[in-house]
Amino acid sequence: MIFKAVRVPFKSGRFAVILNEEDASELGVREGDRVRVRYGKAGVVATVQITREIVEKGFVGLTDLASMELGISDGAEVDVFPSPKPKSVELIKKKTRGEKLSQDEIRRIVEDITNNALSEVELTAFVISSMLRGMDFDEIEWLTRSMIETGERIEFDRGTVVDKHSIGGVPGNKISLLIVPTVAAAGLLIPKTASRAITSASGTADTMEVLANVNLSVDEIKEITERVGGVIAWGGATNIAPADDKIIRVEHPLSIDPRPQLLASVMAKKGSVGAKHVVIDIPVGEGAKIEKVEVGRSLANDFIELGRRLGLNVMAAITYGGQPVGRAIGPALEAREALKTMEDRRGPSSLVEKSLGIAGILFEMTGIATNGYQHARKIFESGKTLEKFREIVAAQGGDESVKAEDVAVGDKTYTLTSQVEGAVVSVNNKSIVKIARTAGAPKDKGAGVYVHKKRGEVVKVGDPLLTIYAEKEWKLDNAIEVANTERPIVVSGMVLEVYGRRGV
Amino acid sequence: MIFKAVRVPFKSGRFAVILNEEDASELGVREGDRVRVRYGKAGVVATVQITREIVEKGFVGLTDLASMELGISDGAEVDVFPSPKPKSVELIKKKTRGEKLSQDEIRRIVEDITNNALSEVELTAFVISSMLRGMDFDEIEWLTRSMIETGERIEFDRGTVVDKHSIGGVPGNKISLLIVPTVAAAGLLIPKTASRAITSASGTADTMEVLANVNLSVDEIKEITERVGGVIAWGGATNIAPADDKIIRVEHPLSIDPRPQLLASVMAKKGSVGAKHVVIDIPVGEGAKIEKVEVGRSLANDFIELGRRLGLNVMAAITYGGQPVGRAIGPALEAREALKTMEDRRGPSSLVEKSLGIAGILFEMTGIATNGYQHARKIFESGKTLEKFREIVAAQGGDESVKAEDVAVGDKTYTLTSQVEGAVVSVNNKSIVKIARTAGAPKDKGAGVYVHKKRGEVVKVGDPLLTIYAEKEWKLDNAIEVANTERPIVVSGMVLEVYGRRGV
Repeated sequence: MIFKAVRVPFKSGRFAVILNEEDASELGVREGDRVRVRYGKAGVVATVQITREIVEKGFVGLTDLASMELGISDGAEVDVFPSPKPKSVELIKKKTRGEKLSQDEIRRIVEDITNNALSEVELTAFVISSMLRGMDFDEIEWLTRSMIETGERIEFDRGTVVDKHSIGGVPGNKISLLIVPTVAAAGLLIPKTASRAITSASGTADTMEVLANVNLSVDEIKEITERVGGVIAWGGATNIAPADDKIIRVEHPLSIDPRPQLLASVMAKKGSVGAKHVVIDIPVGEGAKIEKVEVGRSLANDFIELGRRLGLNVMAAITYGGQPVGRAIGPALEAREALKTMEDRRGPSSLVEKSLGIAGILFEMTGIATNGYQHARKIFESGKTLEKFREIVAAQGGDESVKAEDVAVGDKTYTLTSQVEGAVVSVNNKSIVKIARTAGAPKDKGAGVYVHKKRGEVVKVGDPLLTIYAEKEWKLDNAIEVANTERPIVVSGMVLEVYGRRGV
Repeated sequence: MIFKAVRVPFKSGRFAVILNEEDASELGVREGDRVRVRYGKAGVVATVQITREIVEKGFVGLTDLASMELGISDGAEVDVFPSPKPKSVELIKKKTRGEKLSQDEIRRIVEDITNNALSEVELTAFVISSMLRGMDFDEIEWLTRSMIETGERIEFDRGTVVDKHSIGGVPGNKISLLIVPTVAAAGLLIPKTASRAITSASGTADTMEVLANVNLSVDEIKEITERVGGVIAWGGATNIAPADDKIIRVEHPLSIDPRPQLLASVMAKKGSVGAKHVVIDIPVGEGAKIEKVEVGRSLANDFIELGRRLGLNVMAAITYGGQPVGRAIGPALEAREALKTMEDRRGPSSLVEKSLGIAGILFEMTGIATNGYQHARKIFESGKTLEKFREIVAAQGGDESVKAEDVAVGDKTYTLTSQVEGAVVSVNNKSIVKIARTAGAPKDKGAGVYVHKKRGEVVKVGDPLLTIYAEKEWKLDNAIEVANTERPIVVSGMVLEVYGRRGV
C-alpha cells in the first residue's frame, strides 16, 4: 500500500513505523509485526506501532532512524507491505530448544542485533535462552568474534597493546585513572574504553569526563594512544562491538548478566582495540556483582580460556569487592580522589594497592618487570603516574594543570554521624550507590557520597560516617531520606551478640 | 519533579509516559524504567519512553490508558518520580533460576501481567523461562486459577454447562458452528467464547461474526446461553482471563506456545465460564500445530490432569489435522460452508464427522446418551442443529432466516487448476493459510480459499484445485503470486518416483 510519510521524532534505537489502526488492519499487520518500507531504491524493514490519532489514515509515521535511512522528507510517498521475520528469529528459537548454534548462525543473530532488526521480545528470548540453555565455548568464541567483526576496530602499527577491564559491581572503583597512566608511563599502549554508569553511581567514563573529553572517535583513541601511550574514552561514543550495547539494554531491566554475554561483551571490547595482554579485575564480596569466590574463580578461568581461543593473553585478578574502593563515590568526588592520590603519591590503600597490583600484572605479562607490583609502585611514587595522567588529560582536551582541589563537587551536603561507639562492621555497597544516585549521580557530576569510616575503623559517638554531596537541594533531601532508611554503614561494639540471661 | 501533563494518544496496552530526553536524565531514568505519576490522590506506575521533540521539557506525555486511569486533562500538574520495579520482576528471575514458584508468587505475577505492570522484556523473560525451566502441575494449576481469578467469571444458576476448545493450527476448523447448536439442542448449556485469528485465516469469532454480533459482554453471554442454550462470542470482548491475551502478545512474535501457558490459557477460559464438562480438540498432522501423535497424547493427558485439579471433567480428542477441515477457509466462506452443511443435513465428512464426534463426547460425558455420536447425528439429521443455530444467530442480533446462499463472499476470484493427472498427495495447511491471508482474510470477511480437491481425490489435467476469493484486486494479485510459489496442493501420478535408467 502507498502511504504519505510523516516524521515522528521518537528517539528509538530501532526502525519503527507508526500506522493508523485501520491501515494496519488493512495491511494485515499487528503491533510488533514487520513491514518493509520502500522509497525509490531505498528500503528498510521496520516494526509496526499502531496509533489511533497521531498518524492519520493514509499516512505512515517514521522514526528518526527510519527516515534518515530512507533519506525521506515529510509528504514523500512510500510503499509499505508486510515483511517476514528475519532468519535470526528462527535461530533464536533453535537456541530456546537447547541446540548448539553454528558460527554462521551466531554471526547472523549478531548482525541482526547490530542492525536493530530484532524486537525487544526477540532479543530477550535470545538472552534468556542463552542464559538458561547455556552456550559452549565454541559458541561463546563465535559470539565474541561476531561482536568484534560487526563493529569498528583499532589496529596499532607499533608497540605492545595492553588493556584492563573490571567486571564491575563495586562502587568507587576509579582504578583505571591510576592504572592507565602508570602503564603508559612504562611505555606500553593502553587504549582504554570505559562505560558510563548504568546502575552504578559513576562509570569510569563519567569520572574521567569531569577532567577531560571522553567522547572520542576510534581514530582519536588510536592517535592519542600512539602519541601519549594511553587514553580513557567512553566506549559508547565509538562503534566498537555495538551489538553488546543492545544486548545490555535488555539485560539491564532484568538485572541479569548471563555468563556467555558477559564473557563475550568484555572480550569483544578488548579484542576490538587490538589489545594483546589483558587483565580482568573480578571484585568479589558482599554486595558486589559476584559474592562467592568460587564463582569468581570459575569466571576467571572462563576469561582465560576465551582469551586463549581469541589469541589474547589474559590474566584475571580476584579483588576484594565487599566495600567501596577508596572513599569517594560519584563522578567528581572520584576524579578528585584519584587526582589527589596521584598528587600525594599516596592515598587510600584499597585504591593504591589495587591499582598498582593490576598495573603490575600487566608489567609481568609483557615482560617489563619480574616484580610488576614493585615496578608500578616505583612509577607511582616517582610522580610519573601523575605526569602521564596530565598528559592524557591534555590530549583529551582537558586542563593539563588541573589539581584535585580545583575539582568542583556538590555544594549541598549532609553528613551522617554515628549514634554509637564501636567499629564499622560493614559498608553496604548497594546502599551507598542508592544514596549517591538519589543525590544525582552520575547525571549531576558533583553528586555522590564520601565514606569517612570503612570496615574495621573505630568510631566514636558523633563521628561522621559519610557525607552526601548534591547539586540540588531536593535531590539532597531525597538522598538523606534514603540514607536514613538504608543502613549504609553498620557500626557495632566489639561484642556483637550476647546469649543467655543478664543479671540475676 | 512536577510536570504539565499532555495526552499522547498512542494505542498502548500499558501505562506509559513520554518524557523529554533532558527531563529523563534529570530524573535519572532510562527508557523502560518505571516512574510513579501522582495526580491528586490518583497514581499510576508507568514505563518511560524518551523523546527529543514530541514532548517538550517540563511536560510529560501520557498514553490514553494512563491519562484515563488518572482522570487527567491536558495541562494538569502531575508529580513524577522514579519507582522501583514491581516485586514480580524478582519472581520472574526466580523462575529463570529454575526455582518453583508458590501460589502467591504466581498470583502476583499474573496480577502484574493483568495490570500491564510488566514490560515486554520482563514478560518475555517470564514466558521463555517458564518454557525452558518448565512448571510442575502445582504451578500450572496456580497459573490457571490466578488467570481465572483476575478476570470476569460466569456462574450459571441452573443447567449443565459444557464447553469445547480446539487448540488450533488446522485451517477451516469451523466445527463450533455445528457443535454449539447440536449440544444446545440437547438441552445442555454451552457458553462458547472463541478467539479471532492471530496467524490463521479465520478464528471462530471471525467466522461467526459474518452472521451475528460476537462482541458480547459477560452478562450477554450468560443471558443468551440461559435463554437459547448456547452462544458463540468473541472472548476478547470480555474480560475473561485477561492475563492470557497479554501473554499471547509476546508468544505470537516468537511463534511459541509453551505448554504451561497453553494448558492454563485454555483451561482458564473454560473455568471462567463455569463449564463442568469440557472436550479438548487436539488436531494432529503435518502442518498442524502438533505434528506427532505422541505429543498430542501427552498433551491430552495434561489437560485431563489439569481438569481434575480444577474440578472439571475433561476429555480430549486427537483429531486429524493434516489438511483443512471441510473445503472452505476464510470467514465468509467458512460461515457459508457451515450453514450449507446444516441446511443440507450433510456435507464434507471431515466437518460433519468431527463436529458430531465431539458433540457426542459431550453427550456421553454428561450422561445424555450412551452412544453420543449417534445421538448427535440424530439431532443433526433432524434439522434441529440448524434450527438451534438460527436461534443463536437471532439471539446474537443476526438474521434468523439467513441462508448459505445469502452469505456474500469475495467477488474477485482466481482458480488454480492442475497441470497433471493423478491424485492429491497433500494439501498444505500453511500454504493455504498464507494464500487466504494474503487475499485479505480475516480482515476482509469475503476473502479466503476454497479447496476443490483434498487428499486422495483423483485429478485430471485442467481440474480446479483451489479457488482464491478476495474483495480487492491487488490482494487477489498478491495471493495468486503466493499460490504460484507455494505448493498448496500436490498432485502426483500413482507412480511417485522412478529409479534406474529408462530406455536403452
